[in-house]
Amino acid sequence: LLTTSQHGQDNVMTLSWHMMMEFEPPLIACVVSEGDFSFKALNETGQCVLAVPPLELAKTVVAIGNCSGCDTDKFEVFGLAKRPARRVAAPLIEAAIANLECEVRDRRLVADYDLFVLEAVSAWIDPALANAKTIHHRGLGVFVTDGRELKLDSKMR
Amino acid sequence: LLTTSQHGQDNVMTLSWHMMMEFEPPLIACVVSEGDFSFKALNETGQCVLAVPPLELAKTVVAIGNCSGCDTDKFEVFGLAKRPARRVAAPLIEAAIANLECEVRDRRLVADYDLFVLEAVSAWIDPALANAKTIHHRGLGVFVTDGRELKLDSKMR
Repeated sequence: LLTTSQHGQDNVMTLSWHMMMEFEPPLIACVVSEGDFSFKALNETGQCVLAVPPLELAKTVVAIGNCSGCDTDKFEVFGLAKRPARRVAAPLIEAAIANLECEVRDRRLVADYDLFVLEAVSAWIDPALANAKTIHHRGLGVFVTDGRELKLDSKMR
Repeated sequence: LLTTSQHGQDNVMTLSWHMMMEFEPPLIACVVSEGDFSFKALNETGQCVLAVPPLELAKTVVAIGNCSGCDTDKFEVFGLAKRPARRVAAPLIEAAIANLECEVRDRRLVADYDLFVLEAVSAWIDPALANAKTIHHRGLGVFVTDGRELKLDSKMR
């Protein structure tokens, strides 16, 4: 999930396409389509929160993706509690496993691909959800939940 | 996994950071560190293959990440069969669930972030591996395998 806030109006959207880009500073790339209502707020404020939803929130995640902030207060409609962030105006999602407060660092690929480079400037985790299962979007409403964990001796971070 | 080929030398590396960027044309972003032996081949030839490994290949995937193509023929050492691609010089991985032949389309973020924009110009799947489990890298050698599948009524692709 990706939250934004502009002119006192909070919004939340469902985000499929994102990846880590760097450890230090912690950079994340994400694609927010110009057609999404959140695009303008993200682009103009340069701020957002990335929230990692647990499996229990899967239906809400899809419902959030099926409507638009242009005519819906999604926090109210879906009973999604929010909390103030520390470094950005966009709100944290209380039910999330983790919340990353982010600032836009690079817009060079926005015009051509709607790709934003974000830096996580503050990070929250909910220790009570440390073992919560995450969900992976495969497209067309199909998700895969976490299965067995595998620990291998790796030099990779 | 990401394969390259330069001056008749094939190589394969383990790639954690990648994401979809666009459906049409099919664009994929990936981060290949300048410190990786594959960086030079990818950057200079502008070609690679992205191969999606099944769970059965997890140990090999990590072993590939733990050594370098500068002094190792990983295909030989790990008994990894390859096949010729159709549109690029980089080889396909026979044991992969899917192979995507890719060409580099945008290098604007390479200098600052080692981020390449790729276009998949040809794609292969192995129907025999249609139900194979994939693995998701969580960092430090920890992977999560696919669990239960969830199908929700989504307007999102």
